[in-house]
Amino acid sequence: MRLTVGWQGQKKGVFAVEGARARDLTAAHPEVGSDLMALIRAPELLARIGQEGMAGATVALSDIRPDLPVERPGKIICLGLNYVDHVKEGGYDIPTYPALFLRTLTSMLPAGAPMLLPACSERLDYEAELMVIIGRGGKHIAEAAALDHVFGYTVFNDGSVRDYQRKTHQWTPGKNFDRTGAVGPVVVTPEDLPAGAHGLRITTRVGDEVLQDATTADMMWTVARTIATLSEFTTLEPGDMIAMGTPPGVGHARTPPRWLRAGEVVKVEIEGIGICANPVEAEAAAGGGR
Amino acid sequence: MRLTVGWQGQKKGVFAVEGARARDLTAAHPEVGSDLMALIRAPELLARIGQEGMAGATVALSDIRPDLPVERPGKIICLGLNYVDHVKEGGYDIPTYPALFLRTLTSMLPAGAPMLLPACSERLDYEAELMVIIGRGGKHIAEAAALDHVFGYTVFNDGSVRDYQRKTHQWTPGKNFDRTGAVGPVVVTPEDLPAGAHGLRITTRVGDEVLQDATTADMMWTVARTIATLSEFTTLEPGDMIAMGTPPGVGHARTPPRWLRAGEVVKVEIEGIGICANPVEAEAAAGGGR
Repeated sequence: MRLTVGWQGQKKGVFAVEGARARDLTAAHPEVGSDLMALIRAPELLARIGQEGMAGATVALSDIRPDLPVERPGKIICLGLNYVDHVKEGGYDIPTYPALFLRTLTSMLPAGAPMLLPACSERLDYEAELMVIIGRGGKHIAEAAALDHVFGYTVFNDGSVRDYQRKTHQWTPGKNFDRTGAVGPVVVTPEDLPAGAHGLRITTRVGDEVLQDATTADMMWTVARTIATLSEFTTLEPGDMIAMGTPPGVGHARTPPRWLRAGEVVKVEIEGIGICANPVEAEAAAGGGR
Repeated sequence: MRLTVGWQGQKKGVFAVEGARARDLTAAHPEVGSDLMALIRAPELLARIGQEGMAGATVALSDIRPDLPVERPGKIICLGLNYVDHVKEGGYDIPTYPALFLRTLTSMLPAGAPMLLPACSERLDYEAELMVIIGRGGKHIAEAAALDHVFGYTVFNDGSVRDYQRKTHQWTPGKNFDRTGAVGPVVVTPEDLPAGAHGLRITTRVGDEVLQDATTADMMWTVARTIATLSEFTTLEPGDMIAMGTPPGVGHARTPPRWLRAGEVVKVEIEGIGICANPVEAEAAAGGGR
């Protein structure tokens, strides 16, 4: 199933995407609520909706303004170096364990909304990534059973402020500027994709420029292996998000570097899932002393 | 004011601590709710409670089982290297920007509860830290105004699994094992402490061993400077937590290393705030394949 969360006028809901149309699941089934969390927590509800067949009127997908798929995920875990060629372009050694960082909710934004070019830096960069949304939680999940814990897959642009990412050895500030991580708009449940979302083309484009073009088959840590690795140290919970790292082609590794500029629109696309498109907007002049 | 959040029998509430007794604010003022979030969001409520004088019966503080001061903080930001002598014992250079990492809620536990010694590592270490709880939120907060954004101060033990912390250059896994970061039990509002909680003795003890013994005066980034630095890239929100880094004396820098063992009780104390004491307990044998 293809799902999206968003606003139709003043009303927020969950929609089933059918081509260029979308059916309002929240209107037909109020227990669905205003984000994916109820469906994530109650897989039987999603199954029942699927079996009953889709009822109710459809709206144009373009009339829905996307919002975050999960309003308040418990955690957002990101893999840093998961495509061999991106490891090399960044000057890092091939890792034997994934480089992990976390993102805060304040750093996230929905597809369609403006990505913020910070007041204090001109080095905002794009990163196309597959994003996994956890369904059933667990600890010490075996790799062989790991894909049973996936609710769905979506598109992520792991917007990174490179000078702040490398101010110290810890990447946290550069990965957590307000409204730099764009996610959505469509979440695809596993039965509609290859197992582990393997072998899907993943691209970043700005206008006519194709800046990243790779396949999720090149990920060193597969989705299953990642879930097993993470759940060795942390309990994964329903709605947790895992960003799977980016392929080569990022702006800071180009000669000359290619930073995002206000007014540009960045489009990250994953085959079979969709396009996460966001305009870049300069942060309003800093207030100071608030 | 000295506040604590916890369970008295089956009932959870916010209590005002008065020596060895505690007054149930939630029973007297139901709008206080079951954690500090309502008081953080409505400073006028806390002021009114203070002015009216404390009503109602008190209970023994020892009868309250502590819980997290904020049930679901938006983010938990931690400074990694903030005491010069701890930087040196870890073999790092003196930084010009704080080394920052994030903790997930699943990695946290209240004072009194068992800290988990992971099934996959024997290298669980303590780290005594001052923890700041943000009151009024903001972005681009000036250092001169930053302390106005503090709701209160508490005690933190930033439990770290050292082999996982150094598996890659990113510390995230070692800092996010389930139930390793102990916080509380008492939150002290700013008027009852020196400005910025400066110059307080901070110690870690296990039994008779004094393992860390320093003063918050040795922090390179003060609380005010930290709030200014963080709010350059992230919007601080009410209830956000900031851990201020640890002084020297951690177990992994000792010869031989001094790891926490199941059955030990770790006590982190900050002068004028209180003691965060937690027993160490081995994680139950891994289930596998859940």
